[in-house]
Amino acid sequence: MKRKGILIVVSGFSGAGKGTLMKQLVHTYEDYALSISMTTREPRPGETEGKEYFFVSREEFEKTIREDGLIEYASYCDNYYGTPRAYVERQLEKGRDVILEIEIQGALKVKEKFPTALLVFVMPPDAAELKRRLEGRGTESPEVISKRLARASEEAEGIEKYDFIVINDRLEECVERMHVLIQAAHDTPLRNKELIDDIRKELKTLC
Amino acid sequence: MKRKGILIVVSGFSGAGKGTLMKQLVHTYEDYALSISMTTREPRPGETEGKEYFFVSREEFEKTIREDGLIEYASYCDNYYGTPRAYVERQLEKGRDVILEIEIQGALKVKEKFPTALLVFVMPPDAAELKRRLEGRGTESPEVISKRLARASEEAEGIEKYDFIVINDRLEECVERMHVLIQAAHDTPLRNKELIDDIRKELKTLC
Repeated sequence: MKRKGILIVVSGFSGAGKGTLMKQLVHTYEDYALSISMTTREPRPGETEGKEYFFVSREEFEKTIREDGLIEYASYCDNYYGTPRAYVERQLEKGRDVILEIEIQGALKVKEKFPTALLVFVMPPDAAELKRRLEGRGTESPEVISKRLARASEEAEGIEKYDFIVINDRLEECVERMHVLIQAAHDTPLRNKELIDDIRKELKTLC
Repeated sequence: MKRKGILIVVSGFSGAGKGTLMKQLVHTYEDYALSISMTTREPRPGETEGKEYFFVSREEFEKTIREDGLIEYASYCDNYYGTPRAYVERQLEKGRDVILEIEIQGALKVKEKFPTALLVFVMPPDAAELKRRLEGRGTESPEVISKRLARASEEAEGIEKYDFIVINDRLEECVERMHVLIQAAHDTPLRNKELIDDIRKELKTLC
């Protein structure tokens, strides 16, 4: 059967290693495409248009909102960030699974618009490891680390909204695990309505 | 992390090849144990106590019911059939996933008692193939085949109650697929309550 792509929303604590995991996943398997966000913030040195982000003006962004061209969007530090709908839908139609990284509020909005979206929550093996990773970056002050941990504690309250959790311990294993989860997700009744309808109709004509 | 076993309930149309699939799955992977049913019917030639079934008297069966020793039971053609609780719970504690084959009513009863049970529906690639398989057995009259197809049509109405569907086309692929689904099922929040609680508590103490 020709199968449609699934929209995969990945969330998780800051420091859980989502970014690396997703890059490795897309690199390892051909089945997946990373969604690219649209933003009104200025490109940082080294960032390329259409790679890290689509960089647009405030006017363009608001026009896209009005045209329902975004799956979800949020504003953060006076800048807009959003997920362009067209790219995602094109990939899904082609049968590719599209991965987007987003925090819990956005994840739930996506799930409303795309009931077949798969929600995956990435977390470190334990909280102490999360703290170590945040400290290990060496770029954050103790206050910032403390804030991140508090934020993680809040986010942890929403884990039950997700379909799967992934423990990010060893990267390779975790990539493999993620692949297994996504493959399994293709086999739920919700994501195979046509197939089920077909066999129902066929059974009725046979008996 | 030491993980608990999952109870896996497999249903599907008569002729979908559930039996062969499950035997092959248990044969291929060490993770799984097949549940053995208890019945009051007489052993058929070649059937061994404790292998195909546990054969017991009507009195013993009813005693087991009264002692809540069965996960589910039903009566069919004047005989009782049921799933003994002790064996299943022992295997789950050991971390093995236990597979039991049961029709939809029983499957839903199991899900009530074991909310973490995984429900899998096995089906042929299409209804015509199902008919071919039923005819291919060469043992059934057209009337019986017609009844089986009518029964399949009824059962098909309940597919949405299942967590996953598995298309039984090529056996090896299907066994592999089944394994993927069960592995994925281990990673839902519902089946990792302890782990999630632990990280929540830990995060609270850290921030």
